[in-house]
Amino acid sequence: MALIVQKFGGSSVADAERVKNVARIVTETYKQGNDVVVVVSAQGDTTDDLIAKANEINPKAAKREMDQLLTAGEQISISLLAMAIEGMGYPVISLLGWQAGFNTNSIYNAARIKNIKPNRLQAELAKHNIVVVAGFQGINRYDDLTTLGRGGSDTSAVAIAAVLKADKCQIFTDVEGVYTADPRKVENAKKLKEITYDEMLELATLGAQVLNNRSVEMAKKYGVELEVLSSLNPVPGTIVKEVAKMEKMLIRGVTKDKDVALVSILNLQDTPGVAFKIFSKLSSKNINVDIILQSFGRDGTKDIVFTVSKENGPLAVELLDGMLDDCKIVCNTEVAKVSIVGAGMESHPGTASKMFEALYESNINIQMISTSEIKISVVIDADDADRAVAAVHRAFIPND
Amino acid sequence: MALIVQKFGGSSVADAERVKNVARIVTETYKQGNDVVVVVSAQGDTTDDLIAKANEINPKAAKREMDQLLTAGEQISISLLAMAIEGMGYPVISLLGWQAGFNTNSIYNAARIKNIKPNRLQAELAKHNIVVVAGFQGINRYDDLTTLGRGGSDTSAVAIAAVLKADKCQIFTDVEGVYTADPRKVENAKKLKEITYDEMLELATLGAQVLNNRSVEMAKKYGVELEVLSSLNPVPGTIVKEVAKMEKMLIRGVTKDKDVALVSILNLQDTPGVAFKIFSKLSSKNINVDIILQSFGRDGTKDIVFTVSKENGPLAVELLDGMLDDCKIVCNTEVAKVSIVGAGMESHPGTASKMFEALYESNINIQMISTSEIKISVVIDADDADRAVAAVHRAFIPND
Repeated sequence: MALIVQKFGGSSVADAERVKNVARIVTETYKQGNDVVVVVSAQGDTTDDLIAKANEINPKAAKREMDQLLTAGEQISISLLAMAIEGMGYPVISLLGWQAGFNTNSIYNAARIKNIKPNRLQAELAKHNIVVVAGFQGINRYDDLTTLGRGGSDTSAVAIAAVLKADKCQIFTDVEGVYTADPRKVENAKKLKEITYDEMLELATLGAQVLNNRSVEMAKKYGVELEVLSSLNPVPGTIVKEVAKMEKMLIRGVTKDKDVALVSILNLQDTPGVAFKIFSKLSSKNINVDIILQSFGRDGTKDIVFTVSKENGPLAVELLDGMLDDCKIVCNTEVAKVSIVGAGMESHPGTASKMFEALYESNINIQMISTSEIKISVVIDADDADRAVAAVHRAFIPND
Repeated sequence: MALIVQKFGGSSVADAERVKNVARIVTETYKQGNDVVVVVSAQGDTTDDLIAKANEINPKAAKREMDQLLTAGEQISISLLAMAIEGMGYPVISLLGWQAGFNTNSIYNAARIKNIKPNRLQAELAKHNIVVVAGFQGINRYDDLTTLGRGGSDTSAVAIAAVLKADKCQIFTDVEGVYTADPRKVENAKKLKEITYDEMLELATLGAQVLNNRSVEMAKKYGVELEVLSSLNPVPGTIVKEVAKMEKMLIRGVTKDKDVALVSILNLQDTPGVAFKIFSKLSSKNINVDIILQSFGRDGTKDIVFTVSKENGPLAVELLDGMLDDCKIVCNTEVAKVSIVGAGMESHPGTASKMFEALYESNINIQMISTSEIKISVVIDADDADRAVAAVHRAFIPND
């Protein structure tokens, strides 16, 4: 007998039929002799509908009241799911975030979990109840309700799995697992059986929107074994864990991110602290910088090139224009970032050149390169992005 | 400066415009220098919509889960109202039932308030916040959410007024106050300036659906002054208190109740305990008996006549048929009860005969009469009910 945490997103519980479908998956797991804790998000569009209601009344409402409003969404979905499970004849109880012991800090709208008091969860499991928990929400020390922000339900599920030392945390989505590339775009994209936390983190950051980063970080920290799988198609998904089998693949995936702007500062006077000034300025305006490259130019000048999100590109130029003299600042928003991720590449020196070769053979020009231990990213023309992904995928992922 | 509790029902907060209208009433009261606690129900059809969702999934869902579901309704309305008040520039905070300290017993769906811990309410008032509280809900000793059942929001408002020793508890509805008769049906029906708790209780029981009985009982017990008034038309309503001025009226109102069945047991053997057997049998099946009359017949027999709700009439006959021999049991569901209510009638012996005279002059036959200290009820043909109300109202309520 194992303890399994299962998480279902809003689309998985969008209507009565889907709620019953989730109830079937949950009770199937329970029937096999497992203890089950289920974490659910608000139904389908509920959260958006509530936000629309709030905006109609006060578009600048206090975040404390927004959280008071939004937490009603999961309250509805957990009680409905509990009713569906009860209707199938299984013992069940629904718990709100605070009833399940989720204590958070007081940053409404983006609260962090401080701890989970597991007494109630444990007591309900001891009574052999299936426990349905509201994701995304908790309570602060003032007894006010909080929400965890984007991807919060994933985090809730992993946190429960961590505190209860669950054997597995299953994240049900509308895809069957983690793929080597977007299966809708890349022929022959393969579902991975296993992947490491670090690889998953790189893939998440790079635009494979399967798992929320915070939840993967937490899973890594507490050693929670994750499984990403489909709520519609009952086949094994992708396991995320510390050490993954390589399945004869050098890399785990090829990703594409089009939300990129490339900002170039050319002929910058090479005085001490200039890079610090640039990036602290950007940081002060909450502009997140991804890749940074610096090259030494002639005559005591240097070039600094970096990427930001598309929307922040022009903003960054404007900020820096007012601050820097005698240099040329340009922004290119017609670019994309293509990356390969895989823990194995560290010990394979030829990986980067293999990637560049694949791009060269497809006549794709590389504007910028960035490497880490488990990933290689290139910035290229946005128009070339899909061709680039296909070419690189072909080069690295073996055909069946 | 006074402390005022204001309660608004679901239709008063049904959409964004109405929520803003309530916010205007509340902030107007606050601006005049008062402390204000606002109690609201769920928006318009929210509760019904949630019940429909539940029925689609499991029509026999556990009541604990129904309460978990339904309490989300007020959670939405309190946060939206708080946002509206905030948008008008006033300090405000919304509190769920449990945040406001509502402790109840564990009878889900019809919980009774055990006590209210007023610490949080008092702390927020001390910060000069307008406090918006979710009506209808509380928490039990297991930390599970409960609902108070029908009319629960009125009860919540009165309970808060009682525990905070508020100067007044205003119940906002879609009528302007308590009338001497249904103003849609009776020409010249007059709004009462004042009425006693007991009179209000009689009127409520008799079908004037303005205030929930439980809340009036509680107001009487704790001496909370109530005012019934309109959320749409800002004119003074009706004050409910211990001693009311009579306004030159002998009676407070004329009411009609068509949900009546008259059950007659004729030629019953007059043996000891027979009445007890009859009514304990009915009570054991949860059949509520209203008026009871007994008359002595001939030859050691008697007749017992009583009224129950329409739906319980045939049921009562069936139950008693199996229990009683040698007597005739008939049920008439084509009847109505017309009543007059007024604390003053006690000291006016002519009241009853004045009522009977009015009915006689309208050629209306009386089948049954029942009197108490502050009311007189007659059972008549259902077809005569509206004419009877008009005639009696004409006889007692002075024209302007």
